[in-house]
Amino acid sequence: MRDVAIIGVGMNKKWGELWEVSLRDLFVEAALNAIENAGVDHIDSMYVGCMSSGLFTGQEHVGAMMADYLGQCPVPATRVESACASGGAAVRAGFMEIASGMSDIVLVGGVEKMTDVDGDEATYALATAADQEWEAFNGVTFPGLYAMMAVAHMHRYGTTVQQLASVAVKNHLNGSKNPRSQFPMKITVDTVLNSVMVADPLHILDCSPITDGAAAIILCPADRAKALCKNGAPVKIIGSGQASDTIAFHSRADLTTIESTAKAAAKAYAMAGKKPEEMQVVEVHDCFTIAEIMVTEALGLVEKGKGGPAVESGETAIDGRIPVNPSGGLKSKGHPVGATGVAQMVEVVEQLRGESGDRQVKGARLGMTQNMGGTGASSLVHILEVM
Amino acid sequence: MRDVAIIGVGMNKKWGELWEVSLRDLFVEAALNAIENAGVDHIDSMYVGCMSSGLFTGQEHVGAMMADYLGQCPVPATRVESACASGGAAVRAGFMEIASGMSDIVLVGGVEKMTDVDGDEATYALATAADQEWEAFNGVTFPGLYAMMAVAHMHRYGTTVQQLASVAVKNHLNGSKNPRSQFPMKITVDTVLNSVMVADPLHILDCSPITDGAAAIILCPADRAKALCKNGAPVKIIGSGQASDTIAFHSRADLTTIESTAKAAAKAYAMAGKKPEEMQVVEVHDCFTIAEIMVTEALGLVEKGKGGPAVESGETAIDGRIPVNPSGGLKSKGHPVGATGVAQMVEVVEQLRGESGDRQVKGARLGMTQNMGGTGASSLVHILEVM
Repeated sequence: MRDVAIIGVGMNKKWGELWEVSLRDLFVEAALNAIENAGVDHIDSMYVGCMSSGLFTGQEHVGAMMADYLGQCPVPATRVESACASGGAAVRAGFMEIASGMSDIVLVGGVEKMTDVDGDEATYALATAADQEWEAFNGVTFPGLYAMMAVAHMHRYGTTVQQLASVAVKNHLNGSKNPRSQFPMKITVDTVLNSVMVADPLHILDCSPITDGAAAIILCPADRAKALCKNGAPVKIIGSGQASDTIAFHSRADLTTIESTAKAAAKAYAMAGKKPEEMQVVEVHDCFTIAEIMVTEALGLVEKGKGGPAVESGETAIDGRIPVNPSGGLKSKGHPVGATGVAQMVEVVEQLRGESGDRQVKGARLGMTQNMGGTGASSLVHILEVM
Repeated sequence: MRDVAIIGVGMNKKWGELWEVSLRDLFVEAALNAIENAGVDHIDSMYVGCMSSGLFTGQEHVGAMMADYLGQCPVPATRVESACASGGAAVRAGFMEIASGMSDIVLVGGVEKMTDVDGDEATYALATAADQEWEAFNGVTFPGLYAMMAVAHMHRYGTTVQQLASVAVKNHLNGSKNPRSQFPMKITVDTVLNSVMVADPLHILDCSPITDGAAAIILCPADRAKALCKNGAPVKIIGSGQASDTIAFHSRADLTTIESTAKAAAKAYAMAGKKPEEMQVVEVHDCFTIAEIMVTEALGLVEKGKGGPAVESGETAIDGRIPVNPSGGLKSKGHPVGATGVAQMVEVVEQLRGESGDRQVKGARLGMTQNMGGTGASSLVHILEVM
């Protein structure tokens, strides 16, 4: 199996409610930025992570469409979907294409255009990541599902609403230093606790937003990375883990654990030959504040049940023991669902290259991304090391 | 790169308007049949080809969902989408996972549950394979797009409506010998020409149907295939080609050629070291009768412009020079869009194993599948050889 490296990254200038750009425009901007950043003169193949372009925009077949609008026909172009983990799954598909030797230069992008539908339609589209027959059909939506996790976690481990709010406070502080953030405003624990309640105990500031956005990376064989890479150091993908879990939240043995993340992480750590305590910068899937707490536990970055105190005490801040979501995370940077997993790679690559400006984690050379779909029915974990 | 073989295949007992089974039931039946056929005691990973489960059933995240309902959590499970070529794209993803060495036993399935929505909704969902902004939004649907191809082909090459009808006649005759066929009735050229006009010159019997169905195959490294395979000979994937083209039909340089198929085929032939004239059995994407004619030309099986006379003269019949769609094709067997590309593999594997009963192509040891999305914005071509 060939080793694989990332030699270019790109995103939109800013994520948000971007009414002036369409699905295809979003993707093309990020992809061209990644191609320019890598400095490559062609690509052999491409993947597009996208969760629900059919419901959000009436467009499936977005692999081929993006190849067309990027001026790259006839390159092979395929869409990969795993709900909000679509971006991470697309990265893994590109990784395997290079690892197999089928292609040398692969573009992996993620995109979602979520604001062309109204709130009810967006909620319906997002609920398709849950179990349609047993959850969505009966009216359960994602804030409700994650609220159940929060209640279970609070009950078992004594996690507090202040600790939940601390995740949002940290991520908005980090996001205030990220020019691409949709919601770069700084907030306090009180701001969160006084914001409107969506699903008890989750206030609206415990929830990630609806976002238009895209992100892209360029992959190549690691042994060609230094020769090909025109800007910054190449970053090697040294571990890739993926796992599934029951689609319905109620089928899980333990409501306080994201089991698919724990299993994906175990595979990624084993492949990389690394341990949790060696990680220096981590981007995780904080679709709700409780998610970040549970994910940091599942990744082994903090002890089980201690995710709340860890964030409250600053352990996961940019200057803390293990910086989590220096980008601002889904909470502040935004969460265009199919793009998120790829944008996490963009952030970690920039961090490992030392290009993150005010939010730079000093001296980071080893990082990790964790991207999940639904309530954790799928998880992708990648470990990255600068070359 | 490791060589890859197919060691098991499965489908639903019968395809059609299956109101008694859901999306997940369809997939699980086909997948269990493939697992049983291979005789493997576990899988390492799985892919699900599916075009638009979001619009057809309100369910995305079907990779994880199918892993769950198949009792396979926590295996990695990812959905792959490339419109009606989703199945072929899923096969290629599974192929690369084995080729890379990441996994040893991979299940690749395809599924679509299309009849839980009404005709207008199905037409809308299918139109998402075209260009939403330039085609679908303006009211163009697929019968209209393929009718334009037919008119262009008739104008340039003298292709006749009788030749178009001959594709349907041949495929329904083949399908009458396939117990899985949705529409196994035999028809005549007159039946086609007297059936209701959908989009001139395409009558309803020139069009493939709306279908519920699934198909699945089991892949493993070729050097382990004979030891693992419990039923029938393993079949090696010796060529895999994929190409994209403009998403909008009107952007093509030549309306009478499926360029993405020609390019995907060129790659597959080169990888396999084979020529068109060596193929012994071929399954192609006859979503409309004109499609089969244009595709046989793009694959180099017949001379450019001669696809019509070839089918009319019986060259592509089961006992002809180059048998095309012995399964009955999309026309008679049915076209559950995400499943079609995988079902084509099932048919060719069974043909190469000599298990196709009344529709067996005698002595076939080398075969090919061609699967496409939209009006040909994406194409996948695979070449298979029995081991």
